[in-house]
Amino acid sequence: MKNLFTDIPAHLPDELFETLVKTDSVHVQRIVSKGHTTAKNDWYDQQTNEFVLLLKGAARLEFSDGRLVTMGPGDWLQIPARKKHRVAWTDEAVETVWLAVHYA
Amino acid sequence: MKNLFTDIPAHLPDELFETLVKTDSVHVQRIVSKGHTTAKNDWYDQQTNEFVLLLKGAARLEFSDGRLVTMGPGDWLQIPARKKHRVAWTDEAVETVWLAVHYA
Repeated sequence: MKNLFTDIPAHLPDELFETLVKTDSVHVQRIVSKGHTTAKNDWYDQQTNEFVLLLKGAARLEFSDGRLVTMGPGDWLQIPARKKHRVAWTDEAVETVWLAVHYA
Repeated sequence: MKNLFTDIPAHLPDELFETLVKTDSVHVQRIVSKGHTTAKNDWYDQQTNEFVLLLKGAARLEFSDGRLVTMGPGDWLQIPARKKHRVAWTDEAVETVWLAVHYA
């Protein structure tokens, strides 16, 4: 058994991406952010659908249609494949822990 | 956007199972327990693999080899298909919220 809130490095120069499960059809990741954002004018444009759940911390997602979504613990949403999005903000004071499930 | 910790009925005569995502290859569920357990001598014997994450509350899983695993917030594990298991205990005082990802 593992825990999503442990084994987080004290210093996070980059966002931490860890694969928890990976098969041909599904990819479950833990992501840890601390003040990290997607580079300005850069977008995630994924070939798979994504279920994303914020477990701890706070973040704001931006969609290419201008929609901004601020997320706190327990908040989740689905991002369809090819729906451009970026991480506009994450809390700088505490780690933000996400669970992402990518699926076909 | 939805939140995993809201929209929980005040009374839970049965465990609550809700589908969040379902495709041919993946099934993401929220499960809410409050003192519920799997019936004695009954086992889950699933055709799919399961990634299970405890978000809130506390629970104990039992495997058919006798292994007992007590889980708290953030704890997760993978249960391979056909690995018999049951929920031996869940907290009676607070809701236990799980995220389960079933995958081929």
